[in-house]
Amino acid sequence: MILDLIIIGAGPAGITASVYAARKKMNFLVLTKDIGGQAIWSSDVENYPGYQFITGPDLMTKFQEHMEKYGIQVREKEEVIELEKKDNIVYIKTTKETYEAKTAIIAAGKKVKEIGVPGEKEYKNKGVAYCVTCDGPLFAEKDVAVVGGGNSALDAAIQMMNIANKVYLINMTDKFTGDPIMQEKIKSNPKVKILHNTRVESIAGDKFVKGISVDIQGKKDILNVKGVFIEIGLMPNSWFVKGLDKNEKGEIKVNCANETNVLGVFAAGDVTSVPEKQIVIAAGDGAKAALGAFRYLARLK
Amino acid sequence: MILDLIIIGAGPAGITASVYAARKKMNFLVLTKDIGGQAIWSSDVENYPGYQFITGPDLMTKFQEHMEKYGIQVREKEEVIELEKKDNIVYIKTTKETYEAKTAIIAAGKKVKEIGVPGEKEYKNKGVAYCVTCDGPLFAEKDVAVVGGGNSALDAAIQMMNIANKVYLINMTDKFTGDPIMQEKIKSNPKVKILHNTRVESIAGDKFVKGISVDIQGKKDILNVKGVFIEIGLMPNSWFVKGLDKNEKGEIKVNCANETNVLGVFAAGDVTSVPEKQIVIAAGDGAKAALGAFRYLARLK
Repeated sequence: MILDLIIIGAGPAGITASVYAARKKMNFLVLTKDIGGQAIWSSDVENYPGYQFITGPDLMTKFQEHMEKYGIQVREKEEVIELEKKDNIVYIKTTKETYEAKTAIIAAGKKVKEIGVPGEKEYKNKGVAYCVTCDGPLFAEKDVAVVGGGNSALDAAIQMMNIANKVYLINMTDKFTGDPIMQEKIKSNPKVKILHNTRVESIAGDKFVKGISVDIQGKKDILNVKGVFIEIGLMPNSWFVKGLDKNEKGEIKVNCANETNVLGVFAAGDVTSVPEKQIVIAAGDGAKAALGAFRYLARLK
Repeated sequence: MILDLIIIGAGPAGITASVYAARKKMNFLVLTKDIGGQAIWSSDVENYPGYQFITGPDLMTKFQEHMEKYGIQVREKEEVIELEKKDNIVYIKTTKETYEAKTAIIAAGKKVKEIGVPGEKEYKNKGVAYCVTCDGPLFAEKDVAVVGGGNSALDAAIQMMNIANKVYLINMTDKFTGDPIMQEKIKSNPKVKILHNTRVESIAGDKFVKGISVDIQGKKDILNVKGVFIEIGLMPNSWFVKGLDKNEKGEIKVNCANETNVLGVFAAGDVTSVPEKQIVIAAGDGAKAALGAFRYLARLK
């Protein structure tokens, strides 16, 4: 059977797309490794409008219940290993079988790049964080470290210098790769201490992070920070797509209507080239993708 | 004082933008005629992810409380009558004063469209209505007409079939554009009489509406209704902007980053050229606009 639509991923973008597709009575299913995507790693979500404060897992449970209300077919733990459109059909191969659909929405998200040091996994969401926009306000008036040297690290440092007591900006190399104008802002702010040629060696604490061991140009030191923002980038889960244009980060390129370069194949959320990685933005774009798929099918008749 | 940002409107887009701007510690205020925008006229919202079912007014109260949590300055009942950028400053004139800001987000939404037939203005609020949620209960056990064929007309018909004695659903074209799930609800209800290819020619009455003249597929008829709900769509509140590109509907043209053709001036939600008018899409785009304004200010120094 050829389905109207297959949605890959069940984070904020994929779930919202599924709710919209269900309300349009499309014949579709959702294939996903897990439910909730990156959002479940946010300890505190304070910027999803309608919920002043909710944890990422709680919000994603609400999204999931919303999807379940419509009796949507979700095949969990089914990882997609290939997607390709041939002869007007989108073929989607998973670890279990191959599906056929007229349209697809790729909402497979991103995964964070870890620095891979002792304590990182242990203190994730207990001081170790990967999203300043989400978790920054938790560290008001505290000392924090930001790890990285690109735009996302500089942006994180700029955000945190307005919130934290002190910000150590830890860059592995001898200079930043991020925008000079952002560098200037950081350099002129007395709250930020820039550490070039510096590596984090381990993260320590008890219940929460208490400090990090660093190697600063060959000299060992300990920084007593309560928070560590790892901002060395994210990797889009886009390796399985064939024939879709991606940007230099590996993100699937979309236009304003969340269309990819392949007709009938849409993408939404963190896997795309849309610069902001936010729950409400992923949700809004998931809705756009589903409505776009619906319009595309209407034109096919 | 020149503000970082002024947000015009406090519907889903404007409120979400304000929450994001507050979290970025921008110096800004919100100017708006009212709170909640068009969303408060939806009786049933079932597609805002995270809330399986909520009324429009209840959801907008939650949005408003979210905004109030951040102590955001909101000047209500202050209508903007002109917006123009000159010499790197956005000047925003209201009925009360003129404000200056480095950036602006226009999230002024839409307002209801009239059908423009004799009797419409005369009987406004005397049987002619534009909001079922507000005025529906006035027509309990009476015969009414709903004019339109999109989601708002279908929603109005669904609400009225639970209240009125009989509902004529008058659609100008040969099929509805609203969601199939709503169409089914209407088709299975014996109280609703669907009239496709039908136009209202005039509205008549004495003190209140007594009937409407219609043209049903070329045949003239009179429907003895006491109420007429006009649900044919909305007009963007964009008349006050100077120098911004608009499309043929009067909607402000935006790119994928919610930027207008004037640098530093953003737009989001129903006032824009984004085709879908949905709460979650307006919210997502409001977030994009606020983050865009933040990045623009960062580049300005």
